[in-house]
Amino acid sequence: MGGFQFQIDEPPTDVKAAEKRLDDMANLLAHYKQHMQEKSAHHLGYPINLEFDYAPLLQFQNLHLNNLGDPFVECNYGLHSREFEIAVLDWFARLWELPEDQYWGYVTNGGTEGNMYGLLVGRELFPEGIIYTSCDSHYSIFKAAKMFRVQCIKIDTSFSGEMDCADFRHKLLQNTRSPAIVNVNIGTTMKGAVDDLDEIIRILESCGFANRFYIHCDSALAGLMMPFIKQAPKVTFKKPIGSISISGHKLIGCPTPCGVVMARLMDVNHVMSTNIEYIASRDTTIAGSRNGHAPIFLWYALKRIGYKGLCTTVENCLKKAQYLALCLREKGVSVFLNALGSTVVFERPNDEMFVRKWQLACQGNIAHIVVMPSVSIERINLFVEEFTENRTAVLRDKGSSIPCVAGDIGQENCLCSLHDDRR
Amino acid sequence: MGGFQFQIDEPPTDVKAAEKRLDDMANLLAHYKQHMQEKSAHHLGYPINLEFDYAPLLQFQNLHLNNLGDPFVECNYGLHSREFEIAVLDWFARLWELPEDQYWGYVTNGGTEGNMYGLLVGRELFPEGIIYTSCDSHYSIFKAAKMFRVQCIKIDTSFSGEMDCADFRHKLLQNTRSPAIVNVNIGTTMKGAVDDLDEIIRILESCGFANRFYIHCDSALAGLMMPFIKQAPKVTFKKPIGSISISGHKLIGCPTPCGVVMARLMDVNHVMSTNIEYIASRDTTIAGSRNGHAPIFLWYALKRIGYKGLCTTVENCLKKAQYLALCLREKGVSVFLNALGSTVVFERPNDEMFVRKWQLACQGNIAHIVVMPSVSIERINLFVEEFTENRTAVLRDKGSSIPCVAGDIGQENCLCSLHDDRR
Repeated sequence: MGGFQFQIDEPPTDVKAAEKRLDDMANLLAHYKQHMQEKSAHHLGYPINLEFDYAPLLQFQNLHLNNLGDPFVECNYGLHSREFEIAVLDWFARLWELPEDQYWGYVTNGGTEGNMYGLLVGRELFPEGIIYTSCDSHYSIFKAAKMFRVQCIKIDTSFSGEMDCADFRHKLLQNTRSPAIVNVNIGTTMKGAVDDLDEIIRILESCGFANRFYIHCDSALAGLMMPFIKQAPKVTFKKPIGSISISGHKLIGCPTPCGVVMARLMDVNHVMSTNIEYIASRDTTIAGSRNGHAPIFLWYALKRIGYKGLCTTVENCLKKAQYLALCLREKGVSVFLNALGSTVVFERPNDEMFVRKWQLACQGNIAHIVVMPSVSIERINLFVEEFTENRTAVLRDKGSSIPCVAGDIGQENCLCSLHDDRR
Repeated sequence: MGGFQFQIDEPPTDVKAAEKRLDDMANLLAHYKQHMQEKSAHHLGYPINLEFDYAPLLQFQNLHLNNLGDPFVECNYGLHSREFEIAVLDWFARLWELPEDQYWGYVTNGGTEGNMYGLLVGRELFPEGIIYTSCDSHYSIFKAAKMFRVQCIKIDTSFSGEMDCADFRHKLLQNTRSPAIVNVNIGTTMKGAVDDLDEIIRILESCGFANRFYIHCDSALAGLMMPFIKQAPKVTFKKPIGSISISGHKLIGCPTPCGVVMARLMDVNHVMSTNIEYIASRDTTIAGSRNGHAPIFLWYALKRIGYKGLCTTVENCLKKAQYLALCLREKGVSVFLNALGSTVVFERPNDEMFVRKWQLACQGNIAHIVVMPSVSIERINLFVEEFTENRTAVLRDKGSSIPCVAGDIGQENCLCSLHDDRR
């Protein structure tokens, strides 16, 4: 679809020409929809659940909803969905074990805003604090540090993507004068790694940071999976964390980017709230004017699926991820899968057309597939088949050998000629 | 509608109970829709155009669109609406006279994000800069200054809401060592006042700030009105400004909060861009993951209405605003209307029920109505009638006299017993 078709020209005054133009617009929109549906069919790279049907919510599209200001303060602007938003927040407060009268939160425009909010609460509580985060963190963490003018120290990771706790301790001890604002990854973007929250807390306390630290948990993806995996370590406000953020367009599959951020009411009241008379509300959020449709999507999805439904969904994702990893390994592809995740990391296809077709997210020598509910066994089989065929052809055409990815996913997972112990 | 109905309980396992629950959900949603439609009928306070019909876009609701990263860099995530977004940006670039190869911009989540973006570009260009903004500025400006750790100096305003240029000069001269990052209001939130951009530039240059200033224009509302008013001063990139942001949910009437921010490509390339391999794009935006539906709404609205249509729309809004101001004044209500605006400011109704029914935005002694295309003459008449009846009754019941609002909107506009020269 070429760019020129999309150009916003002036509507003609001639009636026939105007009618023709309306037809052209309708055709363009229909064509675009078809194009997107085709792309959806080959979508694998990014963690988006395409399964949910939100048809019963179509009736709201034309409503001009705006949850401006604080979700808990009634506002003069009457067209909002605060009741839905608060129900969603209550649901998450129960999940994360924070009593209703002790939490504050809101539905964000996505994981980035949630991360910004959490780190901002941390900075306001500890204006002299330093942000610590692993080098595998989402780019929004580094962006927030820069925006907020807070020093940011990167911590090494192991090949699994998990924060290297020895390095964390080492770097903390170099900066004992400044409080610590720690971003803990509950599922890194590229490898789905989960940082060891309990160990991080122990280190902070043993290094003399008791009462001088703030922890934000970036749970964009795995925050909604971990609670439903029995063996997984618990992310809960019963531990000394300050905030959690998750994405709503990933596992829950909202059609627009959105998310939830939650913090302790005490902290928010202490450092974040400014009364704004104009909207008769409190300016506690980053966004100000806020999408009122997203909370209805979240509400509907959570109400339909429930904790039990999510539990089954997550189990299925993990099983399918294990299946995909197994299939790839059987075909001689180097592959890695974190024990509690559904993010399958493997050697990057050496063909950009193929990467684009399957919309694979790549980094250095590796690519990944995040197995979401909408990723079926059939699609996995089709992908594995196409990938291995394409790979064989590319290796043959380019006369290259299997690339070494030991540095990315560990020697034991690398099947290059040097590391493949099956030979 | 009580909160308990909205609670997200677990779906029951019993088939009949599950069916009953689905019916209840459908009823709740239908009831909510009706409630919102009733509220829409009495909506006057906030600048939202409720008129546009986006029905042809219903087909896209279930698409999981995400314009993540930079609009101008193709990204691996295939489900996006970048073509629509770029067409919208091109349209604004023409409006603001910035050549296609010299602008950079994106569709934001609303005016707040646009203001943050503009001020952030200013701060990155002038890390030691001070933000200057009038005390009538939108709260997002003060919030951004706090977030970005930039000193913020408030400038006085006249009763019309416009920046007091003498005070601006005075405060600039007290801080000649630091570069100036100036927020210029093109339509303040409460009074629709337009700061004098040309005079502000002259003052900056005459006070020795040439090449040491950055101007962001917060044009949330009036940015889309000014270009269509012949007598209005021009907001254009031919003047030495750095960025402009507007809201898309106001005059254009997108059903979700959104907006557009535009800056000079040279500046953005210089200070704002970081390559992010994971999304195969540049991390030039604040949001990261970005709503892909909003650009389609904007595209559709602009394509349908065109520059000419907007011109007519704006003329009608101004006329209806003058009519409303006239009606209120005739009834003895103190009222003020900026010459080039459609924001009618008047004495605050002394009845909170009435304020809530009409969803009036209030501040101190004053309230306002922003006349948008969806505000009909009939609705204006109904409002004036109800307001004056209510006002008479309240004044009688409370035994109070007409409040003085000379401090808010000027002596010449105040009709209290002291200032009413008609007596």
